[in-house]
Amino acid sequence: MFAPGNRADLIAKLPRSAPDAVVIDLEDAVPATPEAKAAARSIARDAARDLVAAAPHLAVLVRVNAVASPYFDDDLAVLTPELAGVVVPKLESAGDVTRVMTALASRGLTLPIMAGLETAAGVWNAREVMVPPVAWVYFGAEDYVTDLGGVRTPGNAEVLYARSRVALAARLAGVPALDIVVTRLQGEDAFREDARQGRALGYAGKLCIHPAQVALAHGEFGATPAERERAH
Amino acid sequence: MFAPGNRADLIAKLPRSAPDAVVIDLEDAVPATPEAKAAARSIARDAARDLVAAAPHLAVLVRVNAVASPYFDDDLAVLTPELAGVVVPKLESAGDVTRVMTALASRGLTLPIMAGLETAAGVWNAREVMVPPVAWVYFGAEDYVTDLGGVRTPGNAEVLYARSRVALAARLAGVPALDIVVTRLQGEDAFREDARQGRALGYAGKLCIHPAQVALAHGEFGATPAERERAH
Amino acid sequence: MFAPGNRADLIAKLPRSAPDAVVIDLEDAVPATPEAKAAARSIARDAARDLVAAAPHLAVLVRVNAVASPYFDDDLAVLTPELAGVVVPKLESAGDVTRVMTALASRGLTLPIMAGLETAAGVWNAREVMVPPVAWVYFGAEDYVTDLGGVRTPGNAEVLYARSRVALAARLAGVPALDIVVTRLQGEDAFREDARQGRALGYAGKLCIHPAQVALAHGEFGATPAERERAH
Ligand SMILES: [Mg+2]
Ligand SMILES: [Mg+2]
Ligand SMILES: [Mg+2]
Repeated sequence: MFAPGNRADLIAKLPRSAPDAVVIDLEDAVPATPEAKAAARSIARDAARDLVAAAPHLAVLVRVNAVASPYFDDDLAVLTPELAGVVVPKLESAGDVTRVMTALASRGLTLPIMAGLETAAGVWNAREVMVPPVAWVYFGAEDYVTDLGGVRTPGNAEVLYARSRVALAARLAGVPALDIVVTRLQGEDAFREDARQGRALGYAGKLCIHPAQVALAHGEFGATPAERERAH
Repeated sequence: MFAPGNRADLIAKLPRSAPDAVVIDLEDAVPATPEAKAAARSIARDAARDLVAAAPHLAVLVRVNAVASPYFDDDLAVLTPELAGVVVPKLESAGDVTRVMTALASRGLTLPIMAGLETAAGVWNAREVMVPPVAWVYFGAEDYVTDLGGVRTPGNAEVLYARSRVALAARLAGVPALDIVVTRLQGEDAFREDARQGRALGYAGKLCIHPAQVALAHGEFGATPAERERAH
Repeated sequence: MFAPGNRADLIAKLPRSAPDAVVIDLEDAVPATPEAKAAARSIARDAARDLVAAAPHLAVLVRVNAVASPYFDDDLAVLTPELAGVVVPKLESAGDVTRVMTALASRGLTLPIMAGLETAAGVWNAREVMVPPVAWVYFGAEDYVTDLGGVRTPGNAEVLYARSRVALAARLAGVPALDIVVTRLQGEDAFREDARQGRALGYAGKLCIHPAQVALAHGEFGATPAERERAH
């Protein structure tokens, strides 16, 4: 479950929908201007600290901006050892992973990474990107199709190749894969059908951007990741 | 056409449905206990010998258990030079193929291999697995999806990537590819639709687990593999 | 928009449907006999020269026969520096691209290449084939499926893997990808649906073999490639 990094009110409410994990987002949910990103960082840092204190058993992650963006380095100041991990969008190579590790290490951090594969290069290099400390991966259909110059459709046929490839690479790497966001907020049946597709392809869960999606996702994916892991 | 390795009666009846080839199965059709596997081996060895004698023009193969299983080595005792080949499930790498060759050679055998690609690693490494003496390949959807942690659906969308990839790799290797088993035994139309999908993707034939499926498969795939080969 | 290399009348009419580019075809549109190919070459050379003179702002390309065919070397005599490029079908490797470059250079030509990926090897090696001077790529579904030994269907599911893979590799190489030909000449809706699939997958345009298809393709793909490029 994602919440915008600049909305302390929404971040505080994140536990209400009982998600498996929450992501405080400094990337897509925050306007791409230096001022907006800077403001979000200070809000997110405090809100993350409060959330970890209020919900000690909840996995709290922060999504920073992409390594190649001008915001990445400053975003790292939001990270703390109390987080369950850092979400890095648009990872494209093993080199990118090394860059993240080095940047974390320079701040004394060793957080596990949730890798976002959502560009042509990321999907093509899916196998090599999923090296430790990458501990989870998500496939981002909207950004992938934008990068390709394609068009999103409700049936997802245009991402079946990439969505399948990422799930397969994740299995080889031994990391759980999280399925695409459903951006249309109406339509429980559409969400469920989308979730069933992802589950059939081997995804372990689904990224949610609205509290109502969490229960729907649990309905389709069933067990929590923790239970799923024990069952393996 | 497959028959359980522990059922001499069914093995003897295999020629009745006029399949292109038959497989005496020591793997999935036999319970995974040392006792059941041992009992199946002695039944299968005699039944294979009788079948080769009774139907000298029929291609008779034996499916052993996977290289990584505790049954593989003992299964090799069932193989004889009279067989048309050995079916090895869950092959995952060129190293696996070498291991099979070495094990066969240590018993003075040089049988061609039908490779089962039905795990994440097998599908990912499809091209490198298909080296001589691999002479045929099959894609196993049930095991593949189990390995991925996915869910099988009637439309097969969740295996379209893997099923396409295996057919493509088989063409590059110059070996015929055999399409997925249809496990639902009711529904001729469902079988035919499944077979049409496989044929469209470039598969040369289909694995059958019920005598009634053989005629349906011939109806969709038309020519026998031998005729097909001559036409190339 | 394609026209047969042996039909001066059709070549002269090519600009009428206002295509983005035209291809004078010495390959599939000309019977595969030495006599027919030789006759087409002299017709095509004159017709190309006249077309370039009559429509100086139109991109005129010539499709030669495949590198491995007995016609390739002689086809090069049709090429001139005035052409916008040479279309080379059935490219399969970086070595093939080098062979084309060398052959062009031996005639003092440095034309950009439109690469046809339409065999098993071409699709598998898609990424390595798309090196300069490859400036565009097209995916050929009919030839690909023939090479695989499969069957074409109206829904294109049997080529979704290959069509997706080529679009992805093209994005990585930074070259526009052109989508499959629709061979059924009836059915505007079928053409539009096919074009929408291609556009969703990231294709920048569509190969057309009938003048009526050009307007339909523009209707679905919208901007011309030139406009598209400026927008990036
Ligand atoms: Mg994004
Ligand atoms: Mg199995
Ligand atoms: Mg062709």
